[in-house]
Amino acid sequence: MDALETFPNPHPGRDYTIVHTCPEFTAVCPKTGQPDFGTIRISYVADRECVELKSLKMYLQGYRSKGIYFEAVTNTILDDLVAALRPRRMTVEGDFHVRGGISTVVRVEYEHR
Amino acid sequence: MDALETFPNPHPGRDYTIVHTCPEFTAVCPKTGQPDFGTIRISYVADRECVELKSLKMYLQGYRSKGIYFEAVTNTILDDLVAALRPRRMTVEGDFHVRGGISTVVRVEYEHR
Amino acid sequence: MDALETFPNPHPGRDYTIVHTCPEFTAVCPKTGQPDFGTIRISYVADRECVELKSLKMYLQGYRSKGIYFEAVTNTILDDLVAALRPRRMTVEGDFHVRGGISTVVRVEYEHR
Amino acid sequence: MDALETFPNPHPGRDYTIVHTCPEFTAVCPKTGQPDFGTIRISYVADRECVELKSLKMYLQGYRSKGIYFEAVTNTILDDLVAALRPRRMTVEGDFHVRGGISTVVRVEYEHR
Amino acid sequence: MDALETFPNPHPGRDYTIVHTCPEFTAVCPKTGQPDFGTIRISYVADRECVELKSLKMYLQGYRSKGIYFEAVTNTILDDLVAALRPRRMTVEGDFHVRGGISTVVRVEYEHR
Amino acid sequence: MDALETFPNPHPGRDYTIVHTCPEFTAVCPKTGQPDFGTIRISYVADRECVELKSLKMYLQGYRSKGIYFEAVTNTILDDLVAALRPRRMTVEGDFHVRGGISTVVRVEYEHR
Amino acid sequence: MDALETFPNPHPGRDYTIVHTCPEFTAVCPKTGQPDFGTIRISYVADRECVELKSLKMYLQGYRSKGIYFEAVTNTILDDLVAALRPRRMTVEGDFHVRGGISTVVRVEYEHR
Amino acid sequence: MDALETFPNPHPGRDYTIVHTCPEFTAVCPKTGQPDFGTIRISYVADRECVELKSLKMYLQGYRSKGIYFEAVTNTILDDLVAALRPRRMTVEGDFHVRGGISTVVRVEYEHR
Amino acid sequence: MDALETFPNPHPGRDYTIVHTCPEFTAVCPKTGQPDFGTIRISYVADRECVELKSLKMYLQGYRSKGIYFEAVTNTILDDLVAALRPRRMTVEGDFHVRGGISTVVRVEYEHR
Amino acid sequence: MDALETFPNPHPGRDYTIVHTCPEFTAVCPKTGQPDFGTIRISYVADRECVELKSLKMYLQGYRSKGIYFEAVTNTILDDLVAALRPRRMTVEGDFHVRGGISTVVRVEYEHR
Repeated sequence: MDALETFPNPHPGRDYTIVHTCPEFTAVCPKTGQPDFGTIRISYVADRECVELKSLKMYLQGYRSKGIYFEAVTNTILDDLVAALRPRRMTVEGDFHVRGGISTVVRVEYEHR
Repeated sequence: MDALETFPNPHPGRDYTIVHTCPEFTAVCPKTGQPDFGTIRISYVADRECVELKSLKMYLQGYRSKGIYFEAVTNTILDDLVAALRPRRMTVEGDFHVRGGISTVVRVEYEHR
Repeated sequence: MDALETFPNPHPGRDYTIVHTCPEFTAVCPKTGQPDFGTIRISYVADRECVELKSLKMYLQGYRSKGIYFEAVTNTILDDLVAALRPRRMTVEGDFHVRGGISTVVRVEYEHR
Repeated sequence: MDALETFPNPHPGRDYTIVHTCPEFTAVCPKTGQPDFGTIRISYVADRECVELKSLKMYLQGYRSKGIYFEAVTNTILDDLVAALRPRRMTVEGDFHVRGGISTVVRVEYEHR
Repeated sequence: MDALETFPNPHPGRDYTIVHTCPEFTAVCPKTGQPDFGTIRISYVADRECVELKSLKMYLQGYRSKGIYFEAVTNTILDDLVAALRPRRMTVEGDFHVRGGISTVVRVEYEHR
Repeated sequence: MDALETFPNPHPGRDYTIVHTCPEFTAVCPKTGQPDFGTIRISYVADRECVELKSLKMYLQGYRSKGIYFEAVTNTILDDLVAALRPRRMTVEGDFHVRGGISTVVRVEYEHR
Repeated sequence: MDALETFPNPHPGRDYTIVHTCPEFTAVCPKTGQPDFGTIRISYVADRECVELKSLKMYLQGYRSKGIYFEAVTNTILDDLVAALRPRRMTVEGDFHVRGGISTVVRVEYEHR
Repeated sequence: MDALETFPNPHPGRDYTIVHTCPEFTAVCPKTGQPDFGTIRISYVADRECVELKSLKMYLQGYRSKGIYFEAVTNTILDDLVAALRPRRMTVEGDFHVRGGISTVVRVEYEHR
Repeated sequence: MDALETFPNPHPGRDYTIVHTCPEFTAVCPKTGQPDFGTIRISYVADRECVELKSLKMYLQGYRSKGIYFEAVTNTILDDLVAALRPRRMTVEGDFHVRGGISTVVRVEYEHR
Repeated sequence: MDALETFPNPHPGRDYTIVHTCPEFTAVCPKTGQPDFGTIRISYVADRECVELKSLKMYLQGYRSKGIYFEAVTNTILDDLVAALRPRRMTVEGDFHVRGGISTVVRVEYEHR
């Protein structure tokens, strides 16, 4: 798995929101071995570090051959980004394609206290 | 009626939201015997159990030959999911096609106290 | 005017929302005698009674030859539904087509106290 | 039924197309007595006469209380417009709302020979 | 299977097009036993007979419990309608929901010679 | 400038919302002399008076030859409507077309105290 | 009325298409004195001259206070552009807003022979 | 690479069109090693054989780890499908996501002679 | 960099909102030297000064050849506008095109205290 | 201006279509010095050479500081691509943003004879 790289927040004195949307997410269903597809939306208020865009792309590509469920992958992406960035607040949303006639969205939030 | 199966919530220490949308719901109108069609949207915060997607599909297919009104079916789906999952919060929304020039949405909510 | 018929709320122990949307509403402008067209949206939390869908259709058709203004018809539909259903809460919205280059929406709310 | 009025084509030396779209058409189903709703689209190449817009509105309102089927009403509107305007070419399209879960479009064409 | 009923074409002297769209079609996959969903679009030029709308609805509902493939069902609907109506021309299009990440449209045409 | 006319609120005992949308607004830029175009949206809770729709149309047409900035015209429309109607609450929104590659919305609110 | 200005076609040796779309057209109805609104679409194959964009804007603004019918104004714009540009081919389409519940499109074509 | 499986065309006596749309296609750019994403649309008139839907899914998944350009992959899919099905006509369209600010569509056709 | 010009707020006694949307923003990525594209949305409540629209256009064009990151440019636009206008409240949102399969929005807020 | 690079057509024995869409085109208006924005769409049937995507991006970026009219730039892009690729057929379409309330599309075609 590629490491998430960061760069210093250019305006740490101000709370502001950064949203990254990646419609090219794919992983593998651990039950069926079939590929899953979806869009990952990441929204956060940075503290000292912002995520570097290319390393984010490489990190998300790291799931391409991994077997992992919708609920687990969305939580894991949040955990990894929180560990790397220590943001003030973050939301990760996984919006997955129809499987068996049913589509699924998982939305996970973190707030620093 | 197929039983709803569950799997352990992979992140029970965190409140997060799971949304399943099924646009392929059909039941039968008990008054006219005609088929009804609609979309069922389920949104919940899991406690210990998440609903297994394939069993949810089979459960919803169980209404295919059942005679039941819009208001009743939406409440019953919520009751069955609450009994199976014991979620922290849940909303079920049934969005039904036009009948007699009028479309209908029924939205039911549950909160564990 | 056809009477609004009701049936017993199948889940009176729970607050939940029912929305009916009728895009086939027409009445007559009392000033010009010209037909008006619009969509009526009804959203309510039932107490003991739900509105029967076919009688709602017939009731709304009762305005087809009536001369009545946008503001009055939206208020009257709410009053008649409140009288028939005694709901916990209700909103009626009339969304009327362009007349003289201007479209009009009237939104009326009721809450039982 | 109000008469269709015409005015002289301002450019009879040139073939050009005029399209009128009326989304506020309503008639009555002769079988059920229930109102039908739809959009009437009229497209024509005028010869000597163009249809006057207000008289077209009044003519289409003339169907408001008439019992007539989708196939018949679309053909009749074409026949009446052809009789009044003697156009070089004309198409009338009736696009009717869902009845019994099925929507219907009827498209009729005329060409002067 | 309910019989398709017809009524006499009100304007047999003229070629014109009738389009019926039914977004509430469902059948059963013969391989998996799972329900399939889709929209059936029928477009035809009547000769002596038009299809009666309610009997068309009942006919399409007849597939609700039938096991039949996408390609076969679209061809069979065309064959049955051609047998009942003897139209001058007809197109039937079945537009089926995603299965295994792939959606399917089947389009079949008939022309009387 | 045409006067705004009113009629008595048919339900003064109830707070309800009336929204008028006019997408055919045009005035003149006082700097360049060029016409400006936009949509005016008016939303209010009436007290004793409602605005008469035709007089509203004529009032808005009164800006057709007037030189006035986006910010000023939106405020002035609110002031004139408040003076004529004495509403409980009102919002006026001017949504103006692109000029120099930039579009502009001005939103002004009034609340009676 | 401002004159239409032209500039030399930069590629007269090749047939190619130029389309200008102006959604900010307004004139006056000669019958009611009320303003009309619409979009003018101009598509042409230039011969020696192309229309200068600013002069086109000023030319179209010249209709702001003119009383003229939909059918006449669309033909007149074509005539004026053909006189100024001598194009190989041209289409002018006027797409006018709803009046009396009916919207209107007029499409006029010219081909040099 | 999984083999494409076929089943006998249920109506070989008739020319009709089958369209499969797969929005979950992914391969690898041979130049950068980065994943590419897109939608594959296949439209064909079967002769004796139709493509079995599950084998088509598996076949398309076979590109998941392959390095291949947009132009080559679209041609190869057509070649493989033509070899397996011997259709009367076929079109394959690859609609690929933005790379370097530019999106790409490749459309390839085959006709049996 | 062109200076931002202002004009006196025509209604300083009232809190109201002005929104400017510029979909034609472009700057240069300091890392790759490649141009970036996006939409800048500015929403504010003026105190004594409003921003003059043409100077805003020129100011935003000043980034055309500048190397600056998404996070920095959005913050800098807010800082410059706050310095020039001293608004009561302001939001600046930069909505940037896909780079490496990921799109980015940066939203920055200011409130005078 | 960066040179357009090519690579050998992988299927020269077959006529097929390649479409590239670049919504990030910008040049400068030679009259006003203001930047223009638009989308360039290129569609072609390759003969021996295909255009390399990155060199196409660099080529189109070459207009960023150039003063050139809509009609000229679209023709020039076609000429340069035809010179570099010698395609069998090609269409270039420039779809430019609103200027003075009018948007413009220029469409140029080439066919090898």
